[in-house]
Amino acid sequence: MAPSPTRVVIVGGGFGGCFTARRLERIFGGGGAVEVSLVNRDNYFVFQPLLPEVASGAIIPHQIVNPIRRMLPRTRFFQSEVDGIDLEKREVAVLVGEGRQHHRLPFDHLVLAMGTVVNMSGMPGMSQHSLPMKNLGDAFYLRNHVVGCLENADIEPDPELKRALLTFVVVGGGFSGVETIGELQETIEAVLPSYPNIRRGDVKLLVIQSGPRILPEVVPGLADYARKVLEARGVEVITGTRCQAATADAVLLPDGRRVPTRTLVSTVGNAPHPLLSRLPVKREKGRVVAEETLSVPGWAGVWALGDCAHVVSADSGQPYAPTAQNAIRQATVCADNIAAAIRGRPLRPFRFRALGSLASIGRRSAVAQIMGMRFSGFVAWFLWRTIYLSKLPGWERRLRVALDWTLDLFFKRDLSQLKVFQSERVDEAHYEPGESIVKQGEIGDRFYIIARGAVEVVREDEGGLTCTRLARLGPGEHFGEVALLQNVPRTATVRAVEPTDVVCIGRGDFDAVARSFSLLKAGLQQEAIRRGPS
Amino acid sequence: MAPSPTRVVIVGGGFGGCFTARRLERIFGGGGAVEVSLVNRDNYFVFQPLLPEVASGAIIPHQIVNPIRRMLPRTRFFQSEVDGIDLEKREVAVLVGEGRQHHRLPFDHLVLAMGTVVNMSGMPGMSQHSLPMKNLGDAFYLRNHVVGCLENADIEPDPELKRALLTFVVVGGGFSGVETIGELQETIEAVLPSYPNIRRGDVKLLVIQSGPRILPEVVPGLADYARKVLEARGVEVITGTRCQAATADAVLLPDGRRVPTRTLVSTVGNAPHPLLSRLPVKREKGRVVAEETLSVPGWAGVWALGDCAHVVSADSGQPYAPTAQNAIRQATVCADNIAAAIRGRPLRPFRFRALGSLASIGRRSAVAQIMGMRFSGFVAWFLWRTIYLSKLPGWERRLRVALDWTLDLFFKRDLSQLKVFQSERVDEAHYEPGESIVKQGEIGDRFYIIARGAVEVVREDEGGLTCTRLARLGPGEHFGEVALLQNVPRTATVRAVEPTDVVCIGRGDFDAVARSFSLLKAGLQQEAIRRGPS
Repeated sequence: MAPSPTRVVIVGGGFGGCFTARRLERIFGGGGAVEVSLVNRDNYFVFQPLLPEVASGAIIPHQIVNPIRRMLPRTRFFQSEVDGIDLEKREVAVLVGEGRQHHRLPFDHLVLAMGTVVNMSGMPGMSQHSLPMKNLGDAFYLRNHVVGCLENADIEPDPELKRALLTFVVVGGGFSGVETIGELQETIEAVLPSYPNIRRGDVKLLVIQSGPRILPEVVPGLADYARKVLEARGVEVITGTRCQAATADAVLLPDGRRVPTRTLVSTVGNAPHPLLSRLPVKREKGRVVAEETLSVPGWAGVWALGDCAHVVSADSGQPYAPTAQNAIRQATVCADNIAAAIRGRPLRPFRFRALGSLASIGRRSAVAQIMGMRFSGFVAWFLWRTIYLSKLPGWERRLRVALDWTLDLFFKRDLSQLKVFQSERVDEAHYEPGESIVKQGEIGDRFYIIARGAVEVVREDEGGLTCTRLARLGPGEHFGEVALLQNVPRTATVRAVEPTDVVCIGRGDFDAVARSFSLLKAGLQQEAIRRGPS
Repeated sequence: MAPSPTRVVIVGGGFGGCFTARRLERIFGGGGAVEVSLVNRDNYFVFQPLLPEVASGAIIPHQIVNPIRRMLPRTRFFQSEVDGIDLEKREVAVLVGEGRQHHRLPFDHLVLAMGTVVNMSGMPGMSQHSLPMKNLGDAFYLRNHVVGCLENADIEPDPELKRALLTFVVVGGGFSGVETIGELQETIEAVLPSYPNIRRGDVKLLVIQSGPRILPEVVPGLADYARKVLEARGVEVITGTRCQAATADAVLLPDGRRVPTRTLVSTVGNAPHPLLSRLPVKREKGRVVAEETLSVPGWAGVWALGDCAHVVSADSGQPYAPTAQNAIRQATVCADNIAAAIRGRPLRPFRFRALGSLASIGRRSAVAQIMGMRFSGFVAWFLWRTIYLSKLPGWERRLRVALDWTLDLFFKRDLSQLKVFQSERVDEAHYEPGESIVKQGEIGDRFYIIARGAVEVVREDEGGLTCTRLARLGPGEHFGEVALLQNVPRTATVRAVEPTDVVCIGRGDFDAVARSFSLLKAGLQQEAIRRGPS
């Protein structure tokens, strides 16, 4: 053993990172020969495949997370953001503590296991208006958002708004999208009897897939079965279609169809972590190219695995899919190869054929394909539960989730809307031409700044018979302050005339800033004089 | 029966409101003679006495809430805010739907059950920097905040900051405050083994009570016992002391002591709902005066109960305490009297002597006083659990909480920090003279506007030997934009020279606004020229 320990730094606390660290803990035990550090933004590991169950309220958020410090008691853990990776100097820079000081972690071995981030920049309005299904907060948020829509729909007098509140759209028809729509359908149907003013026919569920069929991960027969089950439950399945744009009020399809909705879930748009693009390594579609041994060519002691790595299978010539299954199995090989490298032994390649695939579609039904055999319906669903349960890290979690699932068989779905969020914040929104951003007569609670596009300000007379166009505003200009400053209903309607992005500030935030910020106050006053009486 | 139903409108969904509605449902069954409507901001009933257990992670948020629609299937429920109450016109105005339109609920009988709101305006900095323990979001937030402090303390290089991160202060030594500090102590001790860089002696727990002793709700003997138990576990108990001020960094005591902390929990500062102050009724300390029958004098068909009502006991001549026990029992009388009024029968007075009082102090220990007998330690704790469990509404909740409590006996406390919040938002902060708001050299992530007070901007030279005072800024002025706009560490230190309130805007929000808002951009540019090179 060397006098100073070999330093292994793992970046990322998902399946790839955590399971590599766990394997290293097992190989090296408590000895001081190897010091393993792991950096992650959250202090817990989240079992991502079960996120749709959280979104639907079937299981509660705490059940699918595990504190990393408990999972990995012999690993140094840093709850921190990675600020830079220097392969030349062999160190990782992280921001630590309250003052967000730079702290450097030198490494002998570096494991890149950063997974993917959400990037929906390709589709106008998508990043502002769709809810991702990527982390625990997203799932929790979606669950509460759906309950909020039902509450609002139950008392909404305007039938058009009510329809939008009861339309739920999922973009992406892969595993995650199909499980999400299936779970949403099950939950909404379960809680509907508590909403006397909503009929089953008022609810619309839609899943939109760009490819020719849903569930491209399984064979066509199983995917067809899943589609039929979903359609029989009233879910509209649209394939071969890519969303054109999303706005605060609707999603636009290429055939010109405009689907008004308040709930747009996106399960597409995963991109590699932006830090990787600055590394002097070879990349394929943003993912770091690694050999079958998971080592990164040209950089001894640097390894990549999981969703952020591009590893080609020698059997098929194809890259391994970004699944939890592959990440877990790559982690074993990666840890073994790090140990082999430290001990001067030969490395072994990663070779693996997926054991099978499983997708739950809600209502105790699933589709599965395991070792070449296909299952569907309740048997597949039971298999799906059992297999996931066996993979949850830690006996405590397994027990808790099993209990929750068991109770769920006997009790109704929870419909409490837990508003633990700060509801007021600066936000961005996208509008397509013709859509109203504020409506005359409504109680205003937001102030707007135009980032891109153009709007027109119009005022209707008393009876709504004539319309006066008061102004056209463009980028950098703002509106909405009159209702907030004077505490009156909106004095005019503001409508997008081009595809428009706005920055929105809630009433509380606007009040706090406008009340105290001289520069802004003076500017708004000058402008009020210039614009004349409103 | 009258052809059109008698309309009962209940404002508030706490113990008083929900239990009144439940009793009315039982009295009138599914018949159409009486139509009960209930208005509440959240769509769930929360079992407030268990909030400290949520804050400590002993039970999870979902366990102590119950959807109001499920609890009260025959009541019309409005998840809405009350905007006005008109006793003359006999109607309640609520804001409904997305457009926040006014909706009027006419009533024959009105039940005021609005509880209290948090009002900490009497103490400088308290409303900005203390965490209340009032609703579910507060408890959930505190739990995650405490875990965040432990994570940051574990990697914080500055010993002073580390000490502040590990100091936990609870203001208020009543039931809620004592349970909170007891639960915090238990949880922190349980998770500490996972934080290798924190020793038990680094953690400081403090409870501050203005009165002469903690737990004024129970007899002195039990309160003494609770104090001894807490002190033996390392909790510092300060009595006869009122906090002077709270800042972003510390809490100030009247003896001049400054306790640096990042966690200040307030269990004091409950005030009646502001809407009540506009009603033409008699009030006592803001609470609506009601007769022993719970009817409000001068307004037939208007009733008040629970924490928002001032009802004097004929036995003791004292007003009933604002406890869940009293609210639950008042609800029965209130519903019975509404039924009696509808049926033209005589009303009955509310008369009740509390059965006892119970307070958990963590670590399976409690103090209790029931029917004159006193218990403490494990027996009291067991009683405490059993009684609370029996009061949780709904068998499902009871079962789930019982399971959770049982698992808690065998497993470790959860230490996952669930960040389901929007961490960026406009916020306010209070600083006392001498405290630094930004520190030269740190990575800046906030922009500041001065609401009240004054600050000085100083720059230290390279070695920290000399200090140049660059400016003094007052209300309406701003600072902190240089680090954000130019992406450099803070170029100067800004320190309060008077008691100062600032409005803070996070980096993401500032970027979104400054990037697109012409008026602000132009103003900041002009000012940069005026202020000269920084």
